[in-house]
Amino acid sequence: MEGTWDEAVRRACRLAERGLGTTSPNPVVGAVLLAPDGQVVGEGWHEQHGGPHAEVMALRDAGERARDATAVVTLEPCRHTGRTGPCTQALIDAGVTRVVVGVADPNPTAGGGAADLRAAGVEVITEPGAAATAAAEHVNRAWLTAVRTGRPHVTLKTASTLDGRVAAADGSSRWITGPDARADVHALRARSDAVLVGGGTLRADDPHLAARGPAVRRQPLRVVLDTGGRIAPDARVLDDSAPTLVVVADDLDAAARERVRSAGAELLALPRDGSGLDLVGLLHALHERGSRAVLVEGGPTLAGAMVARGLVDEVVTYLASALLGAGPSALGPAGITTISEALRLTPFDVTTLGDDVRISARVRRERS
Amino acid sequence: MEGTWDEAVRRACRLAERGLGTTSPNPVVGAVLLAPDGQVVGEGWHEQHGGPHAEVMALRDAGERARDATAVVTLEPCRHTGRTGPCTQALIDAGVTRVVVGVADPNPTAGGGAADLRAAGVEVITEPGAAATAAAEHVNRAWLTAVRTGRPHVTLKTASTLDGRVAAADGSSRWITGPDARADVHALRARSDAVLVGGGTLRADDPHLAARGPAVRRQPLRVVLDTGGRIAPDARVLDDSAPTLVVVADDLDAAARERVRSAGAELLALPRDGSGLDLVGLLHALHERGSRAVLVEGGPTLAGAMVARGLVDEVVTYLASALLGAGPSALGPAGITTISEALRLTPFDVTTLGDDVRISARVRRERS
Ligand SMILES: NC(=O)c1ccc[n+]([C@@H]2O[C@H](COP(=O)([O-])OP(=O)(O)OC[C@H]3O[C@@H](n4cnc5c(N)ncnc54)[C@H](OP(=O)(O)O)[C@@H]3O)[C@@H](O)[C@H]2O)c1
Ligand SMILES: NC(=O)c1ccc[n+]([C@@H]2O[C@H](COP(=O)([O-])OP(=O)(O)OC[C@H]3O[C@@H](n4cnc5c(N)ncnc54)[C@H](OP(=O)(O)O)[C@@H]3O)[C@@H](O)[C@H]2O)c1
Repeated sequence: MEGTWDEAVRRACRLAERGLGTTSPNPVVGAVLLAPDGQVVGEGWHEQHGGPHAEVMALRDAGERARDATAVVTLEPCRHTGRTGPCTQALIDAGVTRVVVGVADPNPTAGGGAADLRAAGVEVITEPGAAATAAAEHVNRAWLTAVRTGRPHVTLKTASTLDGRVAAADGSSRWITGPDARADVHALRARSDAVLVGGGTLRADDPHLAARGPAVRRQPLRVVLDTGGRIAPDARVLDDSAPTLVVVADDLDAAARERVRSAGAELLALPRDGSGLDLVGLLHALHERGSRAVLVEGGPTLAGAMVARGLVDEVVTYLASALLGAGPSALGPAGITTISEALRLTPFDVTTLGDDVRISARVRRERS
Repeated sequence: MEGTWDEAVRRACRLAERGLGTTSPNPVVGAVLLAPDGQVVGEGWHEQHGGPHAEVMALRDAGERARDATAVVTLEPCRHTGRTGPCTQALIDAGVTRVVVGVADPNPTAGGGAADLRAAGVEVITEPGAAATAAAEHVNRAWLTAVRTGRPHVTLKTASTLDGRVAAADGSSRWITGPDARADVHALRARSDAVLVGGGTLRADDPHLAARGPAVRRQPLRVVLDTGGRIAPDARVLDDSAPTLVVVADDLDAAARERVRSAGAELLALPRDGSGLDLVGLLHALHERGSRAVLVEGGPTLAGAMVARGLVDEVVTYLASALLGAGPSALGPAGITTISEALRLTPFDVTTLGDDVRISARVRRERS
C-alpha cells in the first residue's frame, strides 16, 4: 500500500545521511529493523568506507530481536563478499523475514541482493512507494549519479545578493552572506569528496577551501584549476589542513610542474579544451580517485563553463538579503542566449539562515 | 504580561489585512471584541475609504455582547468625527471596558484617542508587547511610512533567475517565473495604490499593469515614466481597465502633452533631476493623490535610481529556479561601489510558489 513504508524509509534515510562525506566511493546506506509489531528494534548506517555496512550495524543493534523482523534499507543489500561479508547472508542468518528496499542497486557488481534474499525465502519489497523511493534516491544522489553516468555528482554553490551579485563593483565581497550561511558552506564541504574553484577565485580570494566546524569528520580534496601553474607558494589552499590537487595544462613545462609540486600540492595535468582545461576529463579523474560528490564553489567563469557543458546536477544558492546594483554576477556565460534555453531547476529545499536564504535545487533531468 | 495579547492582536491584524488596497489614504484597521471570559464576540475591519471604521463594524457584530468587552484594535481608535462619528465615543457608548491598542496613531489630526478613552474610565493598554506591536506595525506599514515620512511606502518588486537575470541575453523574458508567481504579482498590485514602471520597460514589454484575478476589488493607478511623452497611442497601459498616469518632463512642449492626453491618459509634468525625472517629486505627487502603497515593478534602471535615492522601503523578489549566465540584472546602478555600502534588508517572509521562491524583506532603517 502506497505510504506504508514512508516513515521507516525516511528514518533509514536520516541514518544514511550521517555517512555523507565519509563513505565514498561507497554509497551511503541506512537500515532500520522493525519487529512484527512495528517497533524499531535496530538501527544502523554505513559510517565510512571500509567500515561495517548499515545492515550489519542494525543487526548488531537488534541482537536477538532481529529474528522475524523487517529490515528497511535505503539501498538494495549487497550480495558480494566485502570486508564484512555479504549483507544478504547476514540478514538471512539473523532470521529477518522481510526486506524493504528504498532503491535498487544499479551497480552490476553489487546488484542482485534482492534475488538472493528471495531465493532464501525472504519477502522483498522493492517498490515501497513513490515518496519512499524518492527519499532513498535523494540521500544517495551523489553515488547514484556516479554509478549511472561514470562521473561524480556535481553541486554548484553560489553566494550572492538578491540581485545576483557575488561581489561589489570594486571587487569587495567579504562578507556578502552572514555567519550562519558561511557555517553551512563548511557543512556542505564536509559532505563533499572534492571542492573545486577556478583560477580567478584562487588568485582573487586566496580561499582556504577546507571544512571547519565541530561536525567535520573528514576533509574534502581541495582542487584548484591553475592552467599555467601560477599558484603562489604561500596560497592558503597549500597548507596541510586538507589534501590539495592543482590542475594544470598538460603542455606545462617540467620546471613549472616542479614549482607547483615543491609548494606541497599534488599535480594533475589535463589537456586544454577550448578556452580552459578539459572539465569532463577533470571529473573523470576525480571519479577515478574515488570522488562521488564534487562541490564547485565558483567563480562565475568556471560555474558558467560547468553549466555550458551540462555537468551540473544540483545548485545550492545562498541569497543574502542585500542589494548591490553592480558587480559580477554569480554565473558567467553558460552558452545560453534565449529564455527557452534557461537551465531549469526544481527546488527541493528552501531554508532561512539568519538573514540569508538557501535554495537547493536539482537540475531538471530532461535537459542535462 | 508580554504575550497575553499576541493572539488577539494577530487576529485583528488578519482582519485589517483585508482592507489593503482599498482604504488609502486611510489606514487599514482590524478590531476584535473579547468577552470577559476571552471569547471572541465581535470582529470588524475597515473595508474601504469612506466606509465604517473597524471598531464600529466589530461593535455592530457583537451587539449587546459588547458590554464589558475588551476591544483589541490594530491602531489607536480615532477621536475625530468622521463620516461614522469618532470611534472612541462608539466604544464608550457600547460599554467596552478595556481597549488594547496595537500601535499608537502617529497622525496629529487623529491621535489622542487613548486619552479620551481613559478620561471616560476605559482601561487602555498601549503597549501590548513587542510581538503584537510588530504585527500591528507590519500590517499598516504603508500608511505608517506615509504618515512618518510624508511620501508613500515603496515596495520594489523584482522577478529574476537565481543568478539575478531579468531577461536572457537576447532580451527574451517571457516567462521567467511560473504561473503561481505571476498570479501573486496581481495580488500585490491589488494591495497597492499605484504601480510604477520606467520608460524602458514601457517600450520593451508594453506592460498592462492592471491587477487581474478573482480577488481583485480595486485597480491601482498605473504610472509610467515617459520623459519625452513618447508613449505609443496603442500602449496596453492606456486601455480603460484602470486609471493611468503618464509622467513627463515639465519642459515638454504643448503639442507633445496634447498627444499624450489625447491617447486617454492623465498627464503629470515633473522637473528633471540629473539623468531622469524627479522621483521625490513623483512620490509626493502620488501621496497628494492619496497613494500610500506604491509598487515599483522595474526595470533595472528605475529600480537602481529608487535605491540610490533611498526611496525603497521593502523588496519583494521572485526567484525562478533557473540559471541564465547572461542578460540584464534585476537591479541597475544604485550608486553602491563597495560591499559595506550594500543596501541591507531583513527578510520577513520566504514562500515557495510552484518552482519559484518569493522573498519579502524590509530595508533596514538605519540606512534609508
Ligand atoms: N560569492 C561567491 O560565491 C564567489 C565564489 C567564488 C568566487 N567569487 C568571486 O568570483 C571572482 C573570480 O571569478 P572568475 O570568474 O574571475 O574566475 P573563476 O571562475 O574562479 O576562474 C576561472 C579560471 O579558471 C581557470 N580555468 C581552467 N579551466 C577552465 C575551464 N574549463 N572553464 C573555466 N575556467 C577554467 C582559468 O584560469 P587559469 O587560466 O588560471 O587556469 C579561468 O580563468 C572573484 O572576484 C571572487 O571573489 C565569488
Ligand atoms: N523581470 C522583471 O521583473 C522585469 C520588470 C521590469 C522590466 N524588466 C525588463 O527590464 C528592461 C527595461 O529596463 P530598463 O532598465 O531599460 O528601463 P526602466 O528602468 O524600465 O526605465 C528607465 C527609463 O525610465 C525613465 N525615467 C524617467 N525618470 C527616471 C529616473 N529618475 N530614474 C530612472 N528612470 C527614469 C527613462 O526613460 P524616459 O526617458 O523614456 O522617461 C529611463 O530610461 C526590459 O528588458 C524589461 O523586460 C524586467
